[in-house]
Amino acid sequence: MNIQTLKGFRDFLPLEKRKRDFIRGKIAEVFEKFGFEPLETPTLEYASLLLGKYGDEADKLVYTFEDKGERKVGLRYDQTVPTARVLAQYQNELPKYFRRYQIQNVFRAEKPQKGRFREFSQCDADIFGSTSPVADAEILAVLYFAIKNVGFPEVVIKINDRQILMKTLSPFATNEVSVFSIIQSIDKLDKMSPEHVGKELMDKGLSEAAAAQVLSCITQASLSENLREIIGNAMALGIPENNIVFSPTLARGLDYYTGVIFEVIIPEFTVGSCGGGGRYDKLIEQLGGPQIPAVGFGIGFDRVVEAAEVLNLFPENINQSATVLVSIFDKEREEKSLEICSRLRSDNIATELWIEPQAKMEKQLKYAIQKGIPYLVILGPEEVEKNVVMLKNLETREQQEITFEKLIQILKK
Amino acid sequence: MNIQTLKGFRDFLPLEKRKRDFIRGKIAEVFEKFGFEPLETPTLEYASLLLGKYGDEADKLVYTFEDKGERKVGLRYDQTVPTARVLAQYQNELPKYFRRYQIQNVFRAEKPQKGRFREFSQCDADIFGSTSPVADAEILAVLYFAIKNVGFPEVVIKINDRQILMKTLSPFATNEVSVFSIIQSIDKLDKMSPEHVGKELMDKGLSEAAAAQVLSCITQASLSENLREIIGNAMALGIPENNIVFSPTLARGLDYYTGVIFEVIIPEFTVGSCGGGGRYDKLIEQLGGPQIPAVGFGIGFDRVVEAAEVLNLFPENINQSATVLVSIFDKEREEKSLEICSRLRSDNIATELWIEPQAKMEKQLKYAIQKGIPYLVILGPEEVEKNVVMLKNLETREQQEITFEKLIQILKK
Repeated sequence: MNIQTLKGFRDFLPLEKRKRDFIRGKIAEVFEKFGFEPLETPTLEYASLLLGKYGDEADKLVYTFEDKGERKVGLRYDQTVPTARVLAQYQNELPKYFRRYQIQNVFRAEKPQKGRFREFSQCDADIFGSTSPVADAEILAVLYFAIKNVGFPEVVIKINDRQILMKTLSPFATNEVSVFSIIQSIDKLDKMSPEHVGKELMDKGLSEAAAAQVLSCITQASLSENLREIIGNAMALGIPENNIVFSPTLARGLDYYTGVIFEVIIPEFTVGSCGGGGRYDKLIEQLGGPQIPAVGFGIGFDRVVEAAEVLNLFPENINQSATVLVSIFDKEREEKSLEICSRLRSDNIATELWIEPQAKMEKQLKYAIQKGIPYLVILGPEEVEKNVVMLKNLETREQQEITFEKLIQILKK
Repeated sequence: MNIQTLKGFRDFLPLEKRKRDFIRGKIAEVFEKFGFEPLETPTLEYASLLLGKYGDEADKLVYTFEDKGERKVGLRYDQTVPTARVLAQYQNELPKYFRRYQIQNVFRAEKPQKGRFREFSQCDADIFGSTSPVADAEILAVLYFAIKNVGFPEVVIKINDRQILMKTLSPFATNEVSVFSIIQSIDKLDKMSPEHVGKELMDKGLSEAAAAQVLSCITQASLSENLREIIGNAMALGIPENNIVFSPTLARGLDYYTGVIFEVIIPEFTVGSCGGGGRYDKLIEQLGGPQIPAVGFGIGFDRVVEAAEVLNLFPENINQSATVLVSIFDKEREEKSLEICSRLRSDNIATELWIEPQAKMEKQLKYAIQKGIPYLVILGPEEVEKNVVMLKNLETREQQEITFEKLIQILKK
């Protein structure tokens, strides 16, 4: 048997899976608290839906094939295109202002490399149907609080407005160099020096003077009325003033944004942004959906998991499969052990039952320790006689003879 | 744009998605309480892993294709084959007795028909590494309590032992009719009359007398020592005596079972079983994994969702996207509304914020009612002045002027 996964694909063994479920839960909890509703779309769609939406480069990365009924099909490439389909298909069933979130896997035939996978989770939230700056602020707030809820001490949102970029940079556009091409260079300012970006602009065809002016104008650009209102609203919705930062050089590479754009940063975790988004009032229609304005974001799920790992945000007991192992002393006391096990579970205590009645207690103890289970319950002849249990704390190695009621009390903590 | 899903594939809009998440959560909660650990494997695997495992008929149903690197790949067909790979690949990292559950989608190129889908959720739990009847009982108990936890008033487990079937039916096997072929006919006794099954056995090549004897012997078969022990253990683990029923004609079609076999029935919901499983001590090795005994089950997730729907088990508020809509009276009071919204969310109340400041109150009210949001908060000039809010109950249409503290109190209920 071929005992490996395909390159770029991953197994999540229990500990890793629990960590991911923890993060997913923390994020989804905030989405729900903001009235966002979950959506799920199929893994496979007609290839014609997926292709030709984000340009030729993207098309090369879509997993497409012919199914057994000779239909051209493809694997989910992102969550926006299927949502555009959903918006078109169920127009009359969806609320006028549709807040939806979607956390599913997407597939990209990219070269696998560190931190890049061919199957990975996307985590999107958007509001469809409104052009209001209040919707923009809601989106900023839900993003801020979702990331905050994972446990990061500091979360910063960098914000800008495509309209500011357009207004500031349009005067420098030429027949050779489009304003969008200038925006794409500006977008590199957080990774490259101004000199490098200036040189890139000159290579594209701007004069040295124009390139220098672009850099000086963009860093001095000031807040638009629209952005001022959005930031004010976001603060009223609870984002502290210092955690939402106007960043005139933030550009975001994609060409479909029409208004506010933003990225979320975890300052203690320096490897770039953990997600971002903006307003895209034309995209849904361009994707074949109805004419509907939208604002939203995607969270880089793997990035957030990595940041939580680095900053040690997982609960201490995340590695525990159960709170207690109920051992089996011998065949004669087996039934007693099973009964205690059942009572513990009725009291909502995660309990593993030892399953090999013939094994020595030493072996059971060792198993519990290896699995990281913090407590062991023993029911030997004496304990059964006295109607008590022996509880062994596997960290301190202390043991105590206690009643069932006391046992529950200790394990509930 | 092709605004449809492929046949046999489904969108889950918010209400349906919430219902499925509810069921998944209830089942997973019990799995965790029994010390079962979550596992996730990739959607795509090498085709060579997936093919040739369950026979030619199954192979036809596997979605396979050639990826852009000319690798033959396939979509997850079940969760047992990838788990066999995981058991082989991570032998030294997994606990000796590995209790894992897995809830992921699988893909089958079947003819789509009522209740049959090409992408659907499987929900498996198994214990690997033990041949003990205690493990069998744990599996029965976790299945019983997982289904029970969804809210079904009555859950019945039908149980049998492959060894009883083998012992009872082997004397009737001939060169023409294998004992497994007889078992497959017996398996139909819960859907077909004994006459029909008898006729099928004769068509296969048994004499009339032999066929009659098969039917009489099998209905009179008695509990094995092994089964008696398993049932006793299952009862000690909390399954009531009446809810675990020895069913000598239960056979289960698959040939890989080696010991206990069982199905779970929801008597109020009559459409067959909602899941089942058994002991399969040879299968993991046959699938190319290590030589490791196993016992476990699969739950028919869609079947359980359907049963919960029919029996009305979903929480009353499952259709609610939020508990309250905070309206916006006018531009001047917008900020106050945003602040109240933020405070409600800090208090963990699912809150939607109205996002179009120019809209009439009537429109906001109508929107909340259409979305099934039970409360509306209004902050007009008077309320802002008096530092109170107006709370409108959208069911009774009553409204009351209350303090923020009182508001929290009411909405928390």
